[in-house]
Amino acid sequence: MNYFSSDFKLGILGGGQLGRMLLKDTNKFDVQTYVLDPSNEAPCSFYANKFFQGDLMDFDTVYNFGKQVDVLTFEIEGVNIEALQKLEDEGIKVYPSAKTLAKIQNKAIQKSFYLENKIPTAPFTRYNSLNELKNDANNFPFVWKSAQFGYDGNGVKVVRSANDLEGLPNTECIAEEMIPFKNELAVIVCRNPKGESKAYPVVEMEFHPEANQVEYVICPARIDKAVAQKAIDVALKVSNSFEHVGLLAVEMFQTQDDEILVNEVAPRPHNSGHYSIEASYTSQFEQHLRAILNLPLGNAESKVAGIMVNLVGAEGHTGNVLYKNIDKVLELDGVTPHIYGKKQTRPFRKMGHVTIVNEDINKARAIAQEVKETIQVVSS
Amino acid sequence: MNYFSSDFKLGILGGGQLGRMLLKDTNKFDVQTYVLDPSNEAPCSFYANKFFQGDLMDFDTVYNFGKQVDVLTFEIEGVNIEALQKLEDEGIKVYPSAKTLAKIQNKAIQKSFYLENKIPTAPFTRYNSLNELKNDANNFPFVWKSAQFGYDGNGVKVVRSANDLEGLPNTECIAEEMIPFKNELAVIVCRNPKGESKAYPVVEMEFHPEANQVEYVICPARIDKAVAQKAIDVALKVSNSFEHVGLLAVEMFQTQDDEILVNEVAPRPHNSGHYSIEASYTSQFEQHLRAILNLPLGNAESKVAGIMVNLVGAEGHTGNVLYKNIDKVLELDGVTPHIYGKKQTRPFRKMGHVTIVNEDINKARAIAQEVKETIQVVSS
Repeated sequence: MNYFSSDFKLGILGGGQLGRMLLKDTNKFDVQTYVLDPSNEAPCSFYANKFFQGDLMDFDTVYNFGKQVDVLTFEIEGVNIEALQKLEDEGIKVYPSAKTLAKIQNKAIQKSFYLENKIPTAPFTRYNSLNELKNDANNFPFVWKSAQFGYDGNGVKVVRSANDLEGLPNTECIAEEMIPFKNELAVIVCRNPKGESKAYPVVEMEFHPEANQVEYVICPARIDKAVAQKAIDVALKVSNSFEHVGLLAVEMFQTQDDEILVNEVAPRPHNSGHYSIEASYTSQFEQHLRAILNLPLGNAESKVAGIMVNLVGAEGHTGNVLYKNIDKVLELDGVTPHIYGKKQTRPFRKMGHVTIVNEDINKARAIAQEVKETIQVVSS
Repeated sequence: MNYFSSDFKLGILGGGQLGRMLLKDTNKFDVQTYVLDPSNEAPCSFYANKFFQGDLMDFDTVYNFGKQVDVLTFEIEGVNIEALQKLEDEGIKVYPSAKTLAKIQNKAIQKSFYLENKIPTAPFTRYNSLNELKNDANNFPFVWKSAQFGYDGNGVKVVRSANDLEGLPNTECIAEEMIPFKNELAVIVCRNPKGESKAYPVVEMEFHPEANQVEYVICPARIDKAVAQKAIDVALKVSNSFEHVGLLAVEMFQTQDDEILVNEVAPRPHNSGHYSIEASYTSQFEQHLRAILNLPLGNAESKVAGIMVNLVGAEGHTGNVLYKNIDKVLELDGVTPHIYGKKQTRPFRKMGHVTIVNEDINKARAIAQEVKETIQVVSS
């Protein structure tokens, strides 16, 4: 198959910032792209060769979109799986496959999959509804997770008493044992249809000491080599079990006893891999593209250490976005801002990210803090 | 001035591959772009926010285009300078300036400029026409250079006898002494309106041992440190003399006696800087953007060694392009192809380039050779 400067068409479900960063690599390879997103103002709307507005959960919309392309992928899990399955049955290449996505889209099914495949994960109980959970004997505290439609912390809640269950939706869910962990880690694994796979180095999420929020994604993770190797082994096992094609971001906990437990996975480019654009030999986006086009995978190692800081809308600011002090952070060594092209900011909206690279990870960490303390996403 | 996700508009004269690579960075910063190019099928036609078809040498076309933007730059020297000057007079920021471009666009003026500024360059004589040159006493061999409209080797000829002058256009030209050189080197210097400037490392053009053609652009150049420092000093002197804003690629000869002579300059992103996308902390394209937007310049050092191989159309092939064996070169370590999006190939047309990066420059050089011997740009 000739993908480069040809009639070949890659379809992408979802036109957010992940799609937009993927489009930089389709542009580099001159691969034609069709993108479907519910919003006409999606970050990809302008950069795709053809942009379609439509509901990603609607069978007909996804099916009709998919029939126009040669290979179909997605940058968000919330898409109509039945349409993907029918497209696959009719010969369209869908990567990751409908079957893989079905195991991941529903968190209860995902957790059961880990048990079946002997992949270490926190103990949990499945419930068909919140009422079923309420009627069970609960050991507080635990973590409630909605089986479906969770995203960016939505659909997850720490439950310390019965009161905390009030107001939650009465849907399929799990109750997961709360694991005190030392570190939250992630490993991105890439796999092509031939089964070739490569793991990126382990990254570490550094949390704000008070607010329970990730502040920095750091590559490589500042952990023992033995623990890092264990995390990579677990991630590769997860990848082999799913037999996915494309990227799989495996989020994990490092427990107090240095055990590795899988938290959840995302079968697509991931926030924890943004550092790779500047730090890696092959960015996660180019790697995803190589995998779904069944091309040889690139080197997943790093040239230098990389740290990523998310740019989210400041509290109290809604309206036309202004990136305050961006000129000041550009003065710092090895700093690259990525602006996602969203014209309107609102509190906590993901508006962009900044990558800091350096040969010395400690210098990168110090500069990252300066970036974090300097740049502000406000309304103008 | 707020450039990011704002109403600010950057105008680019020329919509070729240099513009297209620049657009990846305007996209990263979400800076709006307007592009003017004579061809509706130019590599930028799709990726600019607004694309205009028109003649870059036509006063009205360039002037009317420029009136719509806040900052105007170019990716090709062949543009109407009078229009740039009038736009500047009317308050549009033009970078590099009309005055800088005027000193560079005409090679005879450019050479005289080096003399006036005590910048080392090969001895030459200026002529208003070819006839004037013919009537002078000529010391063969010499290099004939057309004062204007030279590009990619056009407008340059080695003249070994009076016969070689036949068929050349009767236009303003220079006769330059032929300098036997050890190496052809280049240094890219970036400068912003504040006068802050940064030099990239010296790169080396490695020629085919028989055909007189550049095969590899290698960064860093494999030359003595003292010679490299001299080349950088000369390049910075050239940059300071021109007082340009944006990139200036300074092409130089290293003579048999290790003297550095300036050959010519290009006030824009340059083929000799393509390696920087993968190898440098700041790519030449992001750097140009930072400079013309009067933002702080980025680190111009390299993370790893980089080698660039041009992808040009194979002889005997005209028609729809096919990149043969591109999958084989993707198997090699640290290899990134860039496809410029030209649908039609013809012999020697620049269709793309491949960058090879590695910590070890000798390994990179070996892989570059494999790339060169494997990939072919043919018609399908």
